[in-house]
Amino acid sequence: MKNISKLSTESYKGVRDFYPEDLFIQNYIFDTWRKTVEKFGYVEYSASVLEPAELYKAKTGEEIVNEQTYTFTDRGERQVTLRPEMTPTVARLVAQKQHELTFPLRWYSIPNLFRYEKPQRGRLREHWQLNVDFFGIDSINADIEIITVAERIMKSFGAKDGDFVIKINDRRIMSSLYEKFHLDNEASYKVSKIIDKKNKITAESFGSALAEIIGEKAKEFVTLLESSEKLFDYFGEENKHVKELVSLIEELQKSGIANVEFDPTLMRGFDYYTGTVFEVFDNHPDNNRSVFGGGRYDDLLDIFGAEKVPTIGFGAGDVTMRDFLETHGLLPEYRQNINLYICSTKPEYIDESQKLANTLRENGLNVAVDLSGKKLGDQMKIANKQGIPYVICVGEDEIKSGLYGVKNMDSGEEEKVKIEEIADIVKK
Amino acid sequence: MKNISKLSTESYKGVRDFYPEDLFIQNYIFDTWRKTVEKFGYVEYSASVLEPAELYKAKTGEEIVNEQTYTFTDRGERQVTLRPEMTPTVARLVAQKQHELTFPLRWYSIPNLFRYEKPQRGRLREHWQLNVDFFGIDSINADIEIITVAERIMKSFGAKDGDFVIKINDRRIMSSLYEKFHLDNEASYKVSKIIDKKNKITAESFGSALAEIIGEKAKEFVTLLESSEKLFDYFGEENKHVKELVSLIEELQKSGIANVEFDPTLMRGFDYYTGTVFEVFDNHPDNNRSVFGGGRYDDLLDIFGAEKVPTIGFGAGDVTMRDFLETHGLLPEYRQNINLYICSTKPEYIDESQKLANTLRENGLNVAVDLSGKKLGDQMKIANKQGIPYVICVGEDEIKSGLYGVKNMDSGEEEKVKIEEIADIVKK
Repeated sequence: MKNISKLSTESYKGVRDFYPEDLFIQNYIFDTWRKTVEKFGYVEYSASVLEPAELYKAKTGEEIVNEQTYTFTDRGERQVTLRPEMTPTVARLVAQKQHELTFPLRWYSIPNLFRYEKPQRGRLREHWQLNVDFFGIDSINADIEIITVAERIMKSFGAKDGDFVIKINDRRIMSSLYEKFHLDNEASYKVSKIIDKKNKITAESFGSALAEIIGEKAKEFVTLLESSEKLFDYFGEENKHVKELVSLIEELQKSGIANVEFDPTLMRGFDYYTGTVFEVFDNHPDNNRSVFGGGRYDDLLDIFGAEKVPTIGFGAGDVTMRDFLETHGLLPEYRQNINLYICSTKPEYIDESQKLANTLRENGLNVAVDLSGKKLGDQMKIANKQGIPYVICVGEDEIKSGLYGVKNMDSGEEEKVKIEEIADIVKK
Repeated sequence: MKNISKLSTESYKGVRDFYPEDLFIQNYIFDTWRKTVEKFGYVEYSASVLEPAELYKAKTGEEIVNEQTYTFTDRGERQVTLRPEMTPTVARLVAQKQHELTFPLRWYSIPNLFRYEKPQRGRLREHWQLNVDFFGIDSINADIEIITVAERIMKSFGAKDGDFVIKINDRRIMSSLYEKFHLDNEASYKVSKIIDKKNKITAESFGSALAEIIGEKAKEFVTLLESSEKLFDYFGEENKHVKELVSLIEELQKSGIANVEFDPTLMRGFDYYTGTVFEVFDNHPDNNRSVFGGGRYDDLLDIFGAEKVPTIGFGAGDVTMRDFLETHGLLPEYRQNINLYICSTKPEYIDESQKLANTLRENGLNVAVDLSGKKLGDQMKIANKQGIPYVICVGEDEIKSGLYGVKNMDSGEEEKVKIEEIADIVKK
């Protein structure tokens, strides 16, 4: 056995350790996600974080594959990538069993994702992401449902209407606009990327970047992006994608989701969206940014040579979700999932304490038994520090009488009861 | 946008895709693990799958680090490893906050682990593992608790006493034996490795491998390993580790765990164990192998230059657990977590169906609404194929009367009730 002394206790750069307090928050976020999407009939799937590198070379944004993934070669000369996003994986799974699966499919997953980038607020090298996808329906009803699920997630965390806004756009409206301005594919792609960066650059650089591609009509173009009314007027009734988008927003409002708005500058980073795109945006001045978003991508299965499956979905990251909850004071207080701590007045009673604990565990309680062999006061201190709500001390009297004092650690009050009554007190 | 056609839909070699039916089993295993260990007061922690490679160069078995890990160099010239086991990570976490944490600590985690090896039954390149550790107690009481937790896990899955046996040994007894045979450190290490492989080689090769190191006394050595009685007789009352092990087994039996036995050939692969080691072993002739195991490792924090913390724990893998459950017919049947499917007699009633669904979701049901726009019979088929237990069809009559027919898909029976009564029927 070797002994390399003083090894660092730091984690790898840009990833997180989850001590129980941290994992409590993480699990709270995951559980809330899970419960909400399951209410809408979504079922969970999963896959390995390791994927063949080829999977990302097809349709993900260029920048992401070339510079931002963890890709390495294994000893069998295979190129392997730590998945940077879940969509290619779920497309792979659906394509693989396309003829066995019963469509439509409502699927979700909470994978961890890796990106090789400089860690910053809201962007770490590893994060977890709720992925929700609805496969097999191309009608507006699926768009309504997916955006409703997104909204319900925010509400399930306790967010109010005023805390966030849901911005909506349609890639096809943008394509119509590019056509009107006679932009070819390459120019359209470049303009999309510039619009996507609008909020990160000054109005001046935005205008001049567009002018470089569009020329003198850039000013008119910018004006059209300024408000939904102007853009709607520009297209009038002639464009069916505009009509559909108006109807989508109206349907959502009719169902009680008031905070939706058309935003022609909403692009979303990935290249594979083909229709509706949307984003939940934090209204708080301290965290004025996208919380999460998604959209319709009807062509993703193409890369597997599989039949087309119309799909709409979204991905919500844990880091931005946590930032949102923190900003709005919506994070729950930490408490351990232990109901009761059993102390022993002398070490020889530990056996009896364990026996009592086993009975109470069968009655549905989570019970920790003190094995420290310390003095009673120190045992109580351990329970106190760990925030356990109830304590019982087992000694000669308790064993003889069969009566146990259940101490409420908040109020300090103690009730003397029989074993059968303990679970009821603690569950209250 | 490029289009590489016919990309493979296969996963990376040796890892698994989890379709909903697969993840259902996976989640069943994780939930059973979680519930059981939380009953004993264990709290959950976690960490990233990426760790600095140095972490594994210290105390893990040599073979594992050099040949069996996924290790690569990132663009910042850092050596990174996909964690092959959780113990070094949890030791790192405990060492990092040693002076803030309240000991003793009962911690658990369910990480995924990677090993670069040839996939075979029970051994894949990625698997998940329940890790349970009790930090800060070096008395036999902690050993009893940890082995009790291991036993409760088996019982929680529905296993009976006869289905498995818990084998126990103590590394210190083996050290005493090596001393008696005048083996130095190197010889002891080699002998341990040979004993560890005993069940995989013939009695003949076992004897001759030992003879190479021990010489003519190898025969006596083999005889001592044959039964616990012989070994106990050999040491008599003089060896305190033997006495402790006898007492550990007696205490477990007294508490109702009958299927424990001393097995002097039980070694466990890792080098870092320092005392008690144990293994849950499947008794079934079709799966006669270790299900999981663990032991005491009191020195692991040394590598961080931290204070010693006595620790006992175990790791249980999902693949071997699943093999055990499958062998004993203990796997649950798949069912989706969807309570109700709502069909619409015409597409224009989908709005009403969604409204009804939203009300029922607030009443605690998981409800999927059909958006396929297909004929009613085809909608029912979707519900049937997905194994959803109840269906409601919304049409003109239902909207007018406010009475909905709740169809039980198993019995075919239908009850006509008001909205408020639907949740009660479905929850039954």
